Amino acid sequence: MIASTREQIEALTPLWQGERFEDGRPKVPDDLVKRMELVTTEEAWGVLRRNGYHHQFEAGWLNLHPEQTLVGRAVTCVFMPQRPDVQQVIQERGTAEGRIGGQNSWVIDTLVRDDVIVVDLFGKVQNGTFAGDNLGTSIFTKTQRGMVIDGGIRDTQRIYEMEGFGVFVRGLDPSAIADVTLMGINVPVRIGQATVLPGDVVLGTRTGLIFIPAHLAQEVVERSEDVRLRDQFGHQRLREGKYTPGEIDRKWSEAIEEDFAQWKTSRG
Amino acid sequence: MIASTREQIEALTPLWQGERFEDGRPKVPDDLVKRMELVTTEEAWGVLRRNGYHHQFEAGWLNLHPEQTLVGRAVTCVFMPQRPDVQQVIQERGTAEGRIGGQNSWVIDTLVRDDVIVVDLFGKVQNGTFAGDNLGTSIFTKTQRGMVIDGGIRDTQRIYEMEGFGVFVRGLDPSAIADVTLMGINVPVRIGQATVLPGDVVLGTRTGLIFIPAHLAQEVVERSEDVRLRDQFGHQRLREGKYTPGEIDRKWSEAIEEDFAQWKTSRG
Amino acid sequence: MIASTREQIEALTPLWQGERFEDGRPKVPDDLVKRMELVTTEEAWGVLRRNGYHHQFEAGWLNLHPEQTLVGRAVTCVFMPQRPDVQQVIQERGTAEGRIGGQNSWVIDTLVRDDVIVVDLFGKVQNGTFAGDNLGTSIFTKTQRGMVIDGGIRDTQRIYEMEGFGVFVRGLDPSAIADVTLMGINVPVRIGQATVLPGDVVLGTRTGLIFIPAHLAQEVVERSEDVRLRDQFGHQRLREGKYTPGEIDRKWSEAIEEDFAQWKTSRG
Amino acid sequence: MIASTREQIEALTPLWQGERFEDGRPKVPDDLVKRMELVTTEEAWGVLRRNGYHHQFEAGWLNLHPEQTLVGRAVTCVFMPQRPDVQQVIQERGTAEGRIGGQNSWVIDTLVRDDVIVVDLFGKVQNGTFAGDNLGTSIFTKTQRGMVIDGGIRDTQRIYEMEGFGVFVRGLDPSAIADVTLMGINVPVRIGQATVLPGDVVLGTRTGLIFIPAHLAQEVVERSEDVRLRDQFGHQRLREGKYTPGEIDRKWSEAIEEDFAQWKTSRG
Amino acid sequence: MIASTREQIEALTPLWQGERFEDGRPKVPDDLVKRMELVTTEEAWGVLRRNGYHHQFEAGWLNLHPEQTLVGRAVTCVFMPQRPDVQQVIQERGTAEGRIGGQNSWVIDTLVRDDVIVVDLFGKVQNGTFAGDNLGTSIFTKTQRGMVIDGGIRDTQRIYEMEGFGVFVRGLDPSAIADVTLMGINVPVRIGQATVLPGDVVLGTRTGLIFIPAHLAQEVVERSEDVRLRDQFGHQRLREGKYTPGEIDRKWSEAIEEDFAQWKTSRG
Amino acid sequence: MIASTREQIEALTPLWQGERFEDGRPKVPDDLVKRMELVTTEEAWGVLRRNGYHHQFEAGWLNLHPEQTLVGRAVTCVFMPQRPDVQQVIQERGTAEGRIGGQNSWVIDTLVRDDVIVVDLFGKVQNGTFAGDNLGTSIFTKTQRGMVIDGGIRDTQRIYEMEGFGVFVRGLDPSAIADVTLMGINVPVRIGQATVLPGDVVLGTRTGLIFIPAHLAQEVVERSEDVRLRDQFGHQRLREGKYTPGEIDRKWSEAIEEDFAQWKTSRG
Repeated sequence: MIASTREQIEALTPLWQGERFEDGRPKVPDDLVKRMELVTTEEAWGVLRRNGYHHQFEAGWLNLHPEQTLVGRAVTCVFMPQRPDVQQVIQERGTAEGRIGGQNSWVIDTLVRDDVIVVDLFGKVQNGTFAGDNLGTSIFTKTQRGMVIDGGIRDTQRIYEMEGFGVFVRGLDPSAIADVTLMGINVPVRIGQATVLPGDVVLGTRTGLIFIPAHLAQEVVERSEDVRLRDQFGHQRLREGKYTPGEIDRKWSEAIEEDFAQWKTSRG
Repeated sequence: MIASTREQIEALTPLWQGERFEDGRPKVPDDLVKRMELVTTEEAWGVLRRNGYHHQFEAGWLNLHPEQTLVGRAVTCVFMPQRPDVQQVIQERGTAEGRIGGQNSWVIDTLVRDDVIVVDLFGKVQNGTFAGDNLGTSIFTKTQRGMVIDGGIRDTQRIYEMEGFGVFVRGLDPSAIADVTLMGINVPVRIGQATVLPGDVVLGTRTGLIFIPAHLAQEVVERSEDVRLRDQFGHQRLREGKYTPGEIDRKWSEAIEEDFAQWKTSRG
Repeated sequence: MIASTREQIEALTPLWQGERFEDGRPKVPDDLVKRMELVTTEEAWGVLRRNGYHHQFEAGWLNLHPEQTLVGRAVTCVFMPQRPDVQQVIQERGTAEGRIGGQNSWVIDTLVRDDVIVVDLFGKVQNGTFAGDNLGTSIFTKTQRGMVIDGGIRDTQRIYEMEGFGVFVRGLDPSAIADVTLMGINVPVRIGQATVLPGDVVLGTRTGLIFIPAHLAQEVVERSEDVRLRDQFGHQRLREGKYTPGEIDRKWSEAIEEDFAQWKTSRG
Repeated sequence: MIASTREQIEALTPLWQGERFEDGRPKVPDDLVKRMELVTTEEAWGVLRRNGYHHQFEAGWLNLHPEQTLVGRAVTCVFMPQRPDVQQVIQERGTAEGRIGGQNSWVIDTLVRDDVIVVDLFGKVQNGTFAGDNLGTSIFTKTQRGMVIDGGIRDTQRIYEMEGFGVFVRGLDPSAIADVTLMGINVPVRIGQATVLPGDVVLGTRTGLIFIPAHLAQEVVERSEDVRLRDQFGHQRLREGKYTPGEIDRKWSEAIEEDFAQWKTSRG
Repeated sequence: MIASTREQIEALTPLWQGERFEDGRPKVPDDLVKRMELVTTEEAWGVLRRNGYHHQFEAGWLNLHPEQTLVGRAVTCVFMPQRPDVQQVIQERGTAEGRIGGQNSWVIDTLVRDDVIVVDLFGKVQNGTFAGDNLGTSIFTKTQRGMVIDGGIRDTQRIYEMEGFGVFVRGLDPSAIADVTLMGINVPVRIGQATVLPGDVVLGTRTGLIFIPAHLAQEVVERSEDVRLRDQFGHQRLREGKYTPGEIDRKWSEAIEEDFAQWKTSRG
Repeated sequence: MIASTREQIEALTPLWQGERFEDGRPKVPDDLVKRMELVTTEEAWGVLRRNGYHHQFEAGWLNLHPEQTLVGRAVTCVFMPQRPDVQQVIQERGTAEGRIGGQNSWVIDTLVRDDVIVVDLFGKVQNGTFAGDNLGTSIFTKTQRGMVIDGGIRDTQRIYEMEGFGVFVRGLDPSAIADVTLMGINVPVRIGQATVLPGDVVLGTRTGLIFIPAHLAQEVVERSEDVRLRDQFGHQRLREGKYTPGEIDRKWSEAIEEDFAQWKTSRG
């Protein structure tokens, strides 16, 4: 098998209690995916950290559209440098499973709406371009979201123009992908300093990418909505000069908490 | 003392003859700060160089808003990796001086309008985020100018949206500042290859940051205004094909100088 | 001689059968230069690769205007770190040849419309700024195209504002060029991992720079126009769901080719 | 399962026809392992290349003992940045399989004589030290060979002194391993630009590391023994001035081949 | 004052209860300095970590003599890029204090036996060579120990030959030190990721440099002497196969502790 | 012509008044080459600097034998990334000039005793190995000196064992040289930050490489012999404590000069 089985994914994500896709990936509800679009990287980071997840963020991306936020459910895959013995084994497995086209197409063929494809190409850019405009069009058409490539893309001028397509890569090159073998689909992958599981919620912003374990997505969204309110309140009070930054930038005093409660009520 | 005393700052900036802030920092006049906004990095660099200042420029920044120019008077501070013995000493000093909040707030609390805070965080980004949106809001509200962090910031999505806020940093991260100790306020700091004193005029552009000693600010502004006129003239004559680049790009001949003098007069 | 002679350039570019400039550089027809503006980096790369040219692309640029495409005919030059003995030899040669101004002006003086100056400054940025706004204005006025500097520029704020001026550099600095000697004009130069000849067509995009040997420019343009049609067709069919990405992203079947032929006819 | 099963390893190494360890790893004969000690990196590289294996070499190591050669059969493992959900799954699996001690001990416990442990720690050095002197002693005692860590070690002063212990790492640090989870034993691992399978023959020299697929080990050893003879002959003839480097450094002429045949015979 | 006063150093090192040099630096007893020579980097790191000191180690050095250990009491100093206004202030202060020679000599003149000079030259190597053979001879003659330069040295061929001289630098260059100003002597300095105080015990090995706060030196030495005994015992038992690495590489069982107690007794 | 003509080399080295090789290269006398072996990098650097040569040193080498000094007369050559049009031109020229073997052999065939080959391979290591053991043997046999490759070598294990062979490279790889074209022999080449001419004296030490223009070789040797005497005197006096480092490390006083004169006389 190239792809993890439903059983394997379930075994890796025992904390997820909700719905799953047929392939076993946790299916964070559409509603949470939608609300995640307003979450900041820091809010997600805070919830993850409180839950003991310290290695879910990765910076250092070429983000084609820093002005937009990328959100979606991770479909993962990993490539390694090609050696003929392994390549032959994988090709035979893929053929046996009825997969067609290049190995990168094998993963793309599994994508559904609101997925984000997350590809470990070990930072390879030259001869490491996971997608050009054909595959890019396909990824965007299927997911309406985007892609995270720890490697490169080609046909950038055209991919750049696909409005709403979220693209995080390490570099750009005109060459085609070569000399790599697809070692797994929906297995745990390492993207820089972060470990990503299938079904994680990807959140990509100007700051970088954070991968949110499915079972923490709800807490992230709800905390964010609370924090957003508190920030709004804090900034307003700072502008008004009612409190000092020192008072606002750490745990609020009881008085401030009361003020906040009143403010929250007063704005309905 | 965490902060330099007025006497210490005066001793370090003996060439400044003008007004000073109460804390001792040279107060380059508001008028010059305003006119500095039109100075280019190269014009400032030229005056500094002629005065023997060769190490006032630093490149390699993540400039959140390359389309705008950052100008202001430097308030400096320096952090070092934390060790408990020193941290305790500093905390006790700060408490004794009545400082409140986190150590980064100690500096921010001293800011006034037209200041630019200049922070040596030795390039630390992960756990090296000097400010998030709360402290960022406070810095911007107080200075109406911006910040230079040889380190990182967090809450970038929100800081990015504060219109007119000049932000030069080394990187972005969701983590909070940690494991560092504030070793001094308004001491000389090293920002990459440049040495910065409190009261220096910071000039940040698309090219990078240049730190102008207070006593040279007037010369910089005046030379710039002259150069600007000469460039305008030179470009016009190049477009007209009256002179070759070779003639314009080095010391002008007497004839060109005369032409310039007439041109200057003719435009009033 | 600082510059290659006509005979030397002809000897280096024997495959070019078309018109040449007086200085010997291949003169790819204006019509092809114009049509090249729509070619993507990948299309050019594909034709070059099929012809055995594997080292004509170079990434890693600071591209001042990523939203526009740079196209033009290369005028090349190379600098080396200065040593007085060589510097004196070169200056005497230049003087004997009637060249005036700084050595960088020697090259600029040779530029004509639709040229792109390609400068090997071995990545030097500090004291390695090939042009400021004076020379920049001159380059743009003469070529209406742009410049590729494996080094730096100064006066970036002003150069940035010259609309339509294509600028690929390695970095920005306020310093002036110093401590280098011009070793040749219109000689073969190495720009990173690529070798560039005078008369090559430069194609610069968001992805990077590709240097197209003059004798391949026509094939590049014509293939691109064909590919563009095929891509348009392929994307349309993918959006319609008529074919899978796997089918479109490799050699088309006979049926698809027929479909394409009909589509091409039907759109006139 | 943490470790690949015998069936999984067999499926990945179908070209190996010889003996296997109980765990499924190809067991290249002891005799070949021994003779491999005289093979150079270039000889192995040449045979691999002729067989289509282009990505088996990796440079950039801190080699504690460059004066000695490391040879042995690979036992592989891979770590990823820790996340609590995955860590818990792995710990439960390990416990269920009766594994004891830290996760790095799980692998070490499987080592036998002439193994070389090959660890993907994604280049982590700080908090990425796979072994100190205790585990180092254990690895050396069991294998009599060495270790390849794409990460760090600690207790270097003592490990350095273990005579005959081959050690290739990325860096040295006093910290202990932390914040990582063992994701697999005897799975394919990526070490920089190379893919390594369990049972590959590791060959480490002053030049770097090359990983030889088990089924090619015999060809490598035999070719090397032939090449060694030819080099000996070529160098002798170069020293004698009988042939030029140009003649010796490419395909030999028939005359030289004859000369070589006679020389080989004459030396018995 | 260029140098910290006795009062300033005392204020920074309140945890040190022992003897001090006249200049205020903690004077860790000669006996401890001597016994420190057998301590490993890891042993010191362990004690520091247990005491909450996480940032005292720095790697990435060019260590001229990796086969020897550098131990001594830190004398610190810090340089910054030169600006004429500050340089003049410092020179006048130095003159007023009766200091002679270049600014680097000012620090060297203060050295005594068993000191290690620790210099923050912000990694500068070209024009950043703190010492050549003259000053190197002087440093070695006075301290009999060595130097830690976060910068460069010159005359390396000769410094290399001074037997017993411990030298940790960032690089080698023939140029002389230039364009820097000495900003302080015996102030806290940042050496990479570590903060160093005057009087810290420097311990430099093949692994890197660790800076031990004076008040922890005794604990480090004593723990090391205990650990050394335990390691000796553990390795012996591993070689004997009495215990597994898993048993030895974590907290020992009661049985092992008893075994150790007996072994310790039996060896007298 | 691939190689510079005698006339071209003479034109580039007009300051050399002495003997030349038939190919035009300055032939610094054998006696000076021999005496150069005792010169340090700093002594050469000092003389070059006083003569206005500031860019003749280059660091960052992998020096196979740091314990020995490399000295010899430079034979230079430069490679560029291959493009078929240029490669064909060069091959035809080489054939016409009667050159045989690979292009790297073309240069090696010109070497004579006491030469050092200096190769600009633009830092390429993978597929950028200028020599293996065959060509290495040839270079060493002909020159008895060594090679400077701004690129890689292969067969390092064997090259390492050639006693007395000086080897400065950028890296090691098992691959063969490929995809490059030899663009010139005995032309000026850039090696990192230095410009090298044919006939320069190469001086390679533990510190790095310095390239001494032929016409300055005598001054370098003679100054070195004087400096060596002065250093010997200075160190002796420092050890005796007669003078302070401050006195010795700058311009000597008249009294010291007199002391030196007497000392020089007294030692005969």
